[in-house]
This record gives sequence, structure tokens and C-alpha cells, in this order.
Amino acid sequence: MTEPRAADLQVDFPFDYAQHVSGGRRIGRLPDHALGSPVAVVGAGGSGLTAAYELLRIGCRPILYEAETEPGGPGGRRLGGRMYSRRLSDADSAVVELGCMRFPDSAHLLRHYTEEFGLRRSPFRDEYAADVTPRTVVDLNGETRSVSTMADLSAEHPGFGRARRRWEAALRRIGVFELQDALVARDRARARRLWSDLAHRFEEWTFYRFLRDPGGVGLSRSDAHLLGTTGVATTVWDTFYHLSFLETLRMLLATEGSTMYLLDDGISALADAFWGHGTTGPDGTPTSLAEVNRGAPRPAVTALEVGADQSRGVVVHCEDGTSQWYPAVVFTPQLHILETGVEVRPLNGVRPFGPRLREAIRRIAYWQSAKTVLVTESPFWEGTSLDGVTITDRLPRATYTFDYGEPRRPGGRRGVLVLSFTWAQDSTKLASSTVDERVRALVRELAEIHPEVAGELRRQAENAEACTISWENQRNFRGYCRYARPGDYTYQWDLFANFVKDFTGSPPVPGEPVTPLFLAGDDVAWSPGWLDHAMASGLNAAWGVLRCLGGRTTPDNPGPGDLWDDEHHRPLVLPDDVEGDRR
Amino acid sequence: MTEPRAADLQVDFPFDYAQHVSGGRRIGRLPDHALGSPVAVVGAGGSGLTAAYELLRIGCRPILYEAETEPGGPGGRRLGGRMYSRRLSDADSAVVELGCMRFPDSAHLLRHYTEEFGLRRSPFRDEYAADVTPRTVVDLNGETRSVSTMADLSAEHPGFGRARRRWEAALRRIGVFELQDALVARDRARARRLWSDLAHRFEEWTFYRFLRDPGGVGLSRSDAHLLGTTGVATTVWDTFYHLSFLETLRMLLATEGSTMYLLDDGISALADAFWGHGTTGPDGTPTSLAEVNRGAPRPAVTALEVGADQSRGVVVHCEDGTSQWYPAVVFTPQLHILETGVEVRPLNGVRPFGPRLREAIRRIAYWQSAKTVLVTESPFWEGTSLDGVTITDRLPRATYTFDYGEPRRPGGRRGVLVLSFTWAQDSTKLASSTVDERVRALVRELAEIHPEVAGELRRQAENAEACTISWENQRNFRGYCRYARPGDYTYQWDLFANFVKDFTGSPPVPGEPVTPLFLAGDDVAWSPGWLDHAMASGLNAAWGVLRCLGGRTTPDNPGPGDLWDDEHHRPLVLPDDVEGDRR
Repeated sequence: MTEPRAADLQVDFPFDYAQHVSGGRRIGRLPDHALGSPVAVVGAGGSGLTAAYELLRIGCRPILYEAETEPGGPGGRRLGGRMYSRRLSDADSAVVELGCMRFPDSAHLLRHYTEEFGLRRSPFRDEYAADVTPRTVVDLNGETRSVSTMADLSAEHPGFGRARRRWEAALRRIGVFELQDALVARDRARARRLWSDLAHRFEEWTFYRFLRDPGGVGLSRSDAHLLGTTGVATTVWDTFYHLSFLETLRMLLATEGSTMYLLDDGISALADAFWGHGTTGPDGTPTSLAEVNRGAPRPAVTALEVGADQSRGVVVHCEDGTSQWYPAVVFTPQLHILETGVEVRPLNGVRPFGPRLREAIRRIAYWQSAKTVLVTESPFWEGTSLDGVTITDRLPRATYTFDYGEPRRPGGRRGVLVLSFTWAQDSTKLASSTVDERVRALVRELAEIHPEVAGELRRQAENAEACTISWENQRNFRGYCRYARPGDYTYQWDLFANFVKDFTGSPPVPGEPVTPLFLAGDDVAWSPGWLDHAMASGLNAAWGVLRCLGGRTTPDNPGPGDLWDDEHHRPLVLPDDVEGDRR
Repeated sequence: MTEPRAADLQVDFPFDYAQHVSGGRRIGRLPDHALGSPVAVVGAGGSGLTAAYELLRIGCRPILYEAETEPGGPGGRRLGGRMYSRRLSDADSAVVELGCMRFPDSAHLLRHYTEEFGLRRSPFRDEYAADVTPRTVVDLNGETRSVSTMADLSAEHPGFGRARRRWEAALRRIGVFELQDALVARDRARARRLWSDLAHRFEEWTFYRFLRDPGGVGLSRSDAHLLGTTGVATTVWDTFYHLSFLETLRMLLATEGSTMYLLDDGISALADAFWGHGTTGPDGTPTSLAEVNRGAPRPAVTALEVGADQSRGVVVHCEDGTSQWYPAVVFTPQLHILETGVEVRPLNGVRPFGPRLREAIRRIAYWQSAKTVLVTESPFWEGTSLDGVTITDRLPRATYTFDYGEPRRPGGRRGVLVLSFTWAQDSTKLASSTVDERVRALVRELAEIHPEVAGELRRQAENAEACTISWENQRNFRGYCRYARPGDYTYQWDLFANFVKDFTGSPPVPGEPVTPLFLAGDDVAWSPGWLDHAMASGLNAAWGVLRCLGGRTTPDNPGPGDLWDDEHHRPLVLPDDVEGDRR
């Protein structure tokens, strides 16, 4: 077997988004009369900025709306969404990543933009990444081990080694590595065949069931716990036991065999670049999102009045009391906002969503997630057991250390100690704690794992500046990202298909009105939590807007919707089996 | 088949707690030298008050600590925990139940105390309870039906009827109704045999898997959705799809065939009664919890220093700066508090919890839950479709209406409209919304379901006083109640067994120190979310304290620990199967 190679294509819809927009290519051509059309883009996060940027490049006038505020942001708005970097002082080199902090090199679309914008990246000091991480300390059931790689851990901990070997054997047996190879080789027919088999077989399974069931890994409960707590792969933990196993497979496909990176100036630099970077319209005229938005996104959207068909457009109501009509709107916030913060009303009597999309919007679920971070003058942990990553079954769950190098100005700070990065229940434990309480509780636990640096850690914690976030309590997010449970596949399918409308002849989801409202964002993507896929969802929406405005792709560069009817692209339809016939 | 009869015994440990303390019985006898022993009880909720009350009656001096505050409460403390009733004005008859609002008549222990304290109860206007609920409106996939019973719904909606019949047939086939009968008949041998079969077979299954799998109900995805959204039984919803199916079975056993009740003066009246009710010590001396606590519980506990064995006691540190030694402590808050709010330290170098309890405390999970309520002058909904219960797949999920009768004083209010009672993801949607935002969003949805009363509903919502709660954001709770997922059985077992210590000869959980710290509370009980079972966990802890202080039960009234080694009582041990051997 060859080493696993991370797949840049999304297994559910293996369109090459990076190729679609790189090499100076634009996503299509608008008819002359549509040039300059305003398009509202709700949410200036990864998907919204990608959609807006590419729509700008074909001659639209994308108007961004953003609910998040930040004193230093354009017009007092914070760009980036869950790309949320904070530099606590201008003098610091240290950057706190409150949201997205690492991305795999398989993220080709993301890489295209970071390269276009000239953003510097460095390897992320990830768990078990021996090239860049001095050590990974695994603290489990009160026993602490220091290792470089998962292979080390297997050697030191026979129970882990046995479980890990069985896990790898199970993945090989069900064809996951073969599927990776097929995707990397662009053998979409083979990839589709393998994925179809996996999807039909495992959609109803949880990750935990796969670990336990003899048809999966067949581990004892305690071995499953061991494997889950130490981590199966990046972000694949016991926290995620109750995900649909397909979601686990998507994470594996995107990350196994991939190196993780960070942006040296923080991931928010990507949002700033989308906003400020000079590009050109279709006729070569220089332009930028900042320019067409006159230097500031509009404030939060409060309501959308959605036309019953593509000719009626959408009226966007804003918290500043203004309202404006647009021929098309891209909506990118997490979809539960449609039930709480943003009202969606019919413009002419027809409900904007049919029964299936309403159900999907109501029933999808989101993860809780929390981070608590100390910014320190120096990487005081150097040479201690804290230097690297700590994985634990205690409250912090995962601890990371970063040195951002020489401060930008004297007195600036360079050290970032992520005391804790958690999900779901582990996050909920701390959701109602203040930042000081979080730091105290987390430092107490870390001091027990790292006695050699305990005193200094406590001292630093008293002096360092701390910041924290619980995404579920952020009113413009209400969770970190979507997660799919067994049975949620249909919701994902319906949401993902939304951009296709009826441009291919018939709407993919029966009963849905063909409106000029396009959903994007990582909860509409197949693999939430990966910026690359969120950005791809923005390109889907942009394709829909292009068509909505009467535009077309060019024959040499088909867009995602053009390949919808291709048998190796169109996402699999899974049966509503046992009885009944839903799709 | 006979009608299902709700089982008052807990299937995992079928001890008759109601009998143990009713009829004037006390839980045991203390030796003379132990009479008057102070015992700290952390948390004045259902389990803490039950433990304290019964310990008082055998001659202990239970000292309550309570973190929740309330201006009108004793010493400014709020009694009751998740028994949390609010009367917004003294003149109101209307009572808002922010926590526990209904209990089944199978809750015999709870009934014992309400009768002892002379508390009035009335049938709860529950969904599908045709005797007392004018109608249940089921709003699903945009279609609205008004029915009296589930049988009506089956008749009106053939899809629901078919799914419901298959569900009932599956329960019958796997022996659930037979198990209910066995428990009601006190045939513990038969009950144990049936439960053992179910537990071995289904512990790894989710509720959703049981609905879908041919070995369970075998429903299509859409039929499962239909059944889950309309409700299978009280509190058994699609929200709970990812519970271990055993947890679903426990809920069914406690509620199927049972009538639901409320307390006329609010469930907090039960907490007040525990606190103030005059009882007697073992020698007949009148006493009360209020008296031994000198009128006020102590403030929040910040740390427990736990002795390494039963002779060393526990030092309780309090937020008022005081600390006090006790021979024994009952700890009742939700256990995640042990990682965040209350530090547990060794008093003499031995860790208070061994590896298994540490793991259980860290890895158990809690539900989010939210309620939003309007208090209105009158039951303005009378005679409209809103009069009763509304079940919907929209944001409110479940809506209830109550008329508390004549106000207590002129100008008082009598109407309570629970706009929404939600769990898990449905709760998270609103967690960061203000009360006004919640009311607005919920009323908008309800107005669409009930157009005939929409105008009046909006008018009332503008004038009525509203209150709301999200339990996951309450810092002394961090969730509404525990929920068990597949694989969590071991955690439940280890936590439940904690009270037994080594009084039966050997500690039930190997590696756990035999400390004078006793865990209670509904996350330590087998069926969280049911006050009756939380109270029973208090009696378990009280039995442990009795023994810790050198006391014994009397031969005519054995306590829960005395029956631990009985083959039909001791909770089942499930194998750590496939391989490995954990227990």
C-alpha cells in the first residue's frame, strides 16, 4: 500500500474548484446588459468573500452585508466570519486564531487564493507532526506519554498500537485509501463507485458504531475509547463519535496524508486580502471589493423578501433601516440564523423555501466549540514538555504552542499558548465560565500534566493576556460548524443542490421554488469545518448568480452547475429505504 | 395485550424507594455517638433535599450549601435546583416552571413527599392527553392537524398510523410491555431477565437506529422522521434520536401508560416544603432542615478536600471564605461542575476519584434545554386552536397553555403560555437570543400555525411579561440533564455504584478509593430528567452516609445498598466485548 495521499477533490461532488478560478480564469461571462448588476452577499466570511470576489471579476457589483463588528475593521465591521484572528496589540507578532487555525495542503482552492494574495504560510505545529512539533504529550487515564508520531505511540502503548492497526486495516478493507488514490488520480468513475459503496453502507452508522461493530473496526469499548481520545487523525476524536461515519470519512479524505499549515499573519489576512486586493473586471478595469463597497460592508441584514422566481429579485432589509432590491442574493451565515436573526419572507406570496429545504434548515445541527488562549511575551515553554501539543482526556483536551517570531515592535509579544481547543460537550462544560475562570481551570489541569513547567505556567497565566470564545454563544453564529448525524444525508444533499435551481432543466429538489436566493457557507458544503469547502460553496452560489443574471460559463471552463448532470459529479442519491420512496 | 402500565421501579435497580421512606419509616439507625453528626449536602435540589431530609430524620445535622441565589429565598439562596418555579408577582396565581414541569403518576417516591407535605397536584395538560387537553395541534412539514389523541392522529394521517403501529409492534416484540408488567407486578426475576436481554442487545444502538434498522422498527427515513417529530411518548422526540436506545426504553418505562401531573403552586413548593416542613428526629424531637441550617443554606462551595478513607472526612470550602470539616459529604450538582466550578482535592495525598470515576465524570454528556414563557392576565387562548398543546417541527417545537385559576390578589395574572420547550439543537438555536428576540421569533412561528389567534397572540406578546431560560448557560448547571449515548452505560454504572463504597465487602468499581464523598443527583441516577429518580439517588447517598457514620438499616426496612448484592437488584454488568475485559 502506498502512503495515503490527501484528496483535494470533495468526494461527494468532485469538481475541481481550484482549477476553475486559477490561472487567471474567470467563472464565466455576463451579458452586457447585466454588467454592473448589484448582488447582495450576506456575510463576509470565507464563502461570501469568495463568491463576491469572483462575481466582481465577471463584472457584478457585489454588495457585502456583515453583522459582526470590530472597531478596527472597515466601517467598524469585522471581516472573515470564522476566519477570526486577533492581534491583541499592534506590536505583537503573536496572532490568536479564534476560529480556523489550520488547513491541509490538500486545500487547493484556499492555496490558490493565498498565493494570489501573496500571503505567507508555515507548517502548523499539529499533533504527531514530528517535522515541526517537538513532541506530542498524550495524557490519558492519568498516564502521560511523550511521543513524536503515532507510530511512537503505538510502540510505547501496545493497546493503542493494536487498536490503531485494526483501524488502519479496516479503512483499507472498506476501500478508503483506494478512494483517496482515485480522487488524487482524477479517476472520478472509480471514486464514484467506491464512494457509492461506502455511502450506501455507512450513512446510517455513527463513527462510534464503526469503531465497535465487527463490520467496522470491531474494537472493544475500552480500545475504542483509547483510540478516540488519542485521536484517529486531525480533528477525529471521541468528541465526534456520534457523527455519521460518512462525515468521519470526509474528514479523513481531506486530511490523512496532508500537512497542516497556518497563515503567518493570521487567517483573517485572507479575508482582508479578498476585501482589499486589487483585481480587474472582465474588461480589465482595476477594481476591488473595498472599492465597490465604498470602503465598508453594510450592517446586519434583518430580513429578506424573496421573489417567487428569478425575475423578481430579493429585497434586503438592513438593521440601519434601509432596504434595497437586488436581482440576486447570496446568503452565507449558518442556516439556523434564518429561524432566529434573519427573517425570510415571500415578496409575492410564494414561500421562499419548499418543504424539503425548510426541513433541512430546521433539522441540521451545529457543533459547540471553544478556545481559550494566552498571549505571552516569549515562548516560555521552550525546552519543556509543554513545547508542542498536549492531547488529554482532561478539560483542555488539546493544547497547542506557537512562537510567532520577533515582535513587530519593541514590547510586542510572540508567544501563543492555546490552553484548550474543544468541541461539543467538552466545549459546553466551559460555556458559562468567564475567561478568568476558564484560564484557572485549564491551567490547573495542564499543571498536573506538565509538573516541570507548572510554576512558570501559573505565573505566566497570571500575567499574560487571555482571550476566549464559545462559538455557540456568538449570536451571529450559534455554533462553530454543522455536523451530520446518521440520517442527515438528505439534508446535506438538498442544501448543497440549492445553487443549481432549474438551470439544468429541472430543479434537483422537487417542490422548491426557483428563487434568486442562493445559499452558501460551510453548512451548505459537504464537509463543514473546512474553509476550502466553504469557499467552494461560494463558487457554487456564484455560478448560480451568473446564470440568474443571464450569464454563462465559457466552454473551456465549465462551472460546478454545468457538471451537475454528469454521472460522476452529481451527488449520490441514497434511497429512503425499508419502505416509502422519498427521492 | 393489556394497556401499558407505567413502572414505578427503575429497571436498572428495582429497589422500592417509596416504600423505604413512607409509612413513617426512617432509613436506618445511627449509633448514639453519631447522633448530631454534621453532614454537608452540596446543592439544595431534589436529590440534595431528599438526602438531607432523610438524614435529618435519623439524627444527622445536614448542612446545605447552595450556589443559586434569589432575593426572596432563605438567606438569599434559591432552593430547588431544576425545580425552578417563578411566580412573577405575588398577586399571580400563574406559576412559570423553568425546570421540571410535569411528573408521571408512576413517580411514587415523589408522590410520597408531595402527599406528606400536603401539596396539591393537578393533571398536566400534556400532548395527546385527551382528558385534560382540549386538543393537540400537530404542525409538520407545513401541514397542520388538530387531534385529541395519538389514535386520532393515526386515523387522520395514514403515514403516521402505519409508523405508529409498527413502533408499537416492535416494542411488543422485544418485550417492553412484558417488562412493564413484570415491574408493576414486582416480579424482579422476570424483569431482570427481560432487561438483560434488551440491555445486551441494544446498549450500542441509538434510538434512531432502532427506528430504522430491520431488527428494530424498520421504518423508512421519512416515516422515522414523521414519528420522531410528532412524538413517540412524553419527551421521546427526534431531538433524542442519538441517545442510547436503553435511555429511550427507560423513558418509556417511566411514562407509557402514566398520567402526567403538575403541582398547583409550582414544583418549587416541594423544595420549600423539604426545607420548612416540621419532622422529627429519631427520638421524636421536632426539627426541620430550616432549623438545623439556622434559616439559610450556606453559599456556594468552591473546593472539597476529600479524605482518603472514611475516617478522614471532607473539608468543604465555601465562597464566603469559610471552611469546615465534615465526616461525610453528599455532592449533588451536575458532575461537570467538578471540572469547572468546584475543585476536588485530596486531603491526604490520595486522589478522591480513581481512573474509572474520573473518566465517567469527564465523558458524560448533558442536554441543552430552553423554555420561553409568557404570563398573561387571562387564558386568552380559550376556545382557539392554541388552547392545548402544539407540537411542531418549527422553532417552538412544543407549546403548552395553562390556566392557574383565580389570581391570588386583584390584578394578578392566571395565564401561562409556554411558547416553547426545546432540547439539544433546538435549544442551541436560541441560546444567544435575548428574551425579546426569543418571544418575537417564537410568536412569529406560532402565529403561522394558529392564524385565528395570531393577532391576539401578537398583542398579548407585546404586553405580557416574558421569562426564559437556557440551562446550558446557567453557570451552576451547564446543561439541563445528563444523556446517555451508546457506550455510556459503563459511566452510568460506575457513577450509580458510587454510594455502595466498600460497605458490601468490596468496592463495586475497582481502583476507586473509599472516600466519605457521596455523589447524588439526576446525572448519577439511571434515568436523568426525572425528579423521582434524582430523589432516589439522594436516598442512595443517604444510605452511604448512614453506613459511613457507623449506622445500619433495620431488618424490616433494608436500604438500597443492602440489596446491592441481590442478583435481581444489582445493576447488570455489560461486557466490554469484541475483545478486552474491563469489568
